[in-house]
Amino acid sequence: MNKPQVPDFLKNIRVVLARPSHPGNIGSAARAMKTMGLTRLYLVEPKSFPHEEANVLASGAVDVVENAVVVTSLAEALADVTVACALTSRRRELSTPLSTPRETAPELMARARDGEQVALVFGNETFGLSIEEVEQCNRLVTVPGNPDYFSLNLAMAVQVMTYELFSHVGVTVDYLKPEDRSATLAEVDSFCQHMDETFGALGLLEKRNGERLKRRMRTLFNRAGLQREEIDILRGFFRQSQRFADGTLSPRKKEQD
Amino acid sequence: MNKPQVPDFLKNIRVVLARPSHPGNIGSAARAMKTMGLTRLYLVEPKSFPHEEANVLASGAVDVVENAVVVTSLAEALADVTVACALTSRRRELSTPLSTPRETAPELMARARDGEQVALVFGNETFGLSIEEVEQCNRLVTVPGNPDYFSLNLAMAVQVMTYELFSHVGVTVDYLKPEDRSATLAEVDSFCQHMDETFGALGLLEKRNGERLKRRMRTLFNRAGLQREEIDILRGFFRQSQRFADGTLSPRKKEQD
Repeated sequence: MNKPQVPDFLKNIRVVLARPSHPGNIGSAARAMKTMGLTRLYLVEPKSFPHEEANVLASGAVDVVENAVVVTSLAEALADVTVACALTSRRRELSTPLSTPRETAPELMARARDGEQVALVFGNETFGLSIEEVEQCNRLVTVPGNPDYFSLNLAMAVQVMTYELFSHVGVTVDYLKPEDRSATLAEVDSFCQHMDETFGALGLLEKRNGERLKRRMRTLFNRAGLQREEIDILRGFFRQSQRFADGTLSPRKKEQD
Repeated sequence: MNKPQVPDFLKNIRVVLARPSHPGNIGSAARAMKTMGLTRLYLVEPKSFPHEEANVLASGAVDVVENAVVVTSLAEALADVTVACALTSRRRELSTPLSTPRETAPELMARARDGEQVALVFGNETFGLSIEEVEQCNRLVTVPGNPDYFSLNLAMAVQVMTYELFSHVGVTVDYLKPEDRSATLAEVDSFCQHMDETFGALGLLEKRNGERLKRRMRTLFNRAGLQREEIDILRGFFRQSQRFADGTLSPRKKEQD
């Protein structure tokens, strides 16, 4: 299976970091974004930028850092945006809808697909988003977590939110699966008959519970999701044990330990 | 609304770090875990542990680091486990089922709820999991991401996987929502009548498009999800404008800028 492509409309989703203090976090956020197929980073009044540490922590995502748009106000970063999500974990006395990344993702993806500009807005590492910053957004998004210990740092929050969006893109991990082919029901059935026959040839079905034993084995292999190559290996094992059972092969000497 | 509780059965899910090199990553992983309600950390042959840097990066999750179980083999960490997920992003020539965190989470949660022990196994920062380590697990889990740039560091992978599990716990973010109450349809309807009446009193409905104008406004406020307090504020505004329109209040002098 070929590698899938990241869809082009993800360019309509931007990450906005409001007043980030540590350049390392800018780099980590860029890495998190690119891993999830996003590339457009806006920085509102970053304390130190450009900065070597941002590039170091960006790892292979230096391009995202280098193409970051630096602006002097959040309004500027959001000017052409229709939906801006304020990422916050504080209780806010605002009637802006509050939702989880999972609840919000389908709407954001649909808008980006339609060509609208969407923003994910993250606050300063220490203070989060100010009330004024939150009021410039039209969605509140909170990552669910342990109510007694919620400590998601900036880059982690970017990672979780962008992971959630990416999981709605439809790019699966199928291309990483081995090419091995699942056995059909007919192949499994024929395999089970071979197993029954082998069990019989080995004298395993002479007790009263023979039928039950066969049924248990059939259930096991039906459940296991057999691959064709695995059937080939097991059939080889069946044949070999039959050869010993019927005397075609003579007993082997025990191997020395 | 009261703070919800993290369910007790999450203690049946452990995070296993196989041969971690950097103590800082142990701390960051502990913080990520605790943020998502997990507490049980196993370390297989950590290079440097205990270590001050692990505690520093754990932030408020030092308890998770201090209670970590250090073992000398992966088998030891998995001895009482029924389902072990190997987190991997490489293509593996194994017919172990490969799935995403989202696909795997329901099964893991169901097993943990039933009292089975479940493990999430993460490899070394540089080399990932060895083939021998992967073979000791009975599930392969891959976080979906950009096929052309997939760079999820150890703690980020722990964060994404534990976020995914936590999102199936049923602990919502509702307790963070303000107590404000949504208006009923009857309240919105009565509010819209008040608005129509106000528009009429202000001479806004005398043109031919009066009906259309009222309908647009009604659609807007139906869509907006009005809160009761917002209705109160708007009704106050309507009353006040009517008072100016009917002469109950005399015109105010323009404020100086």
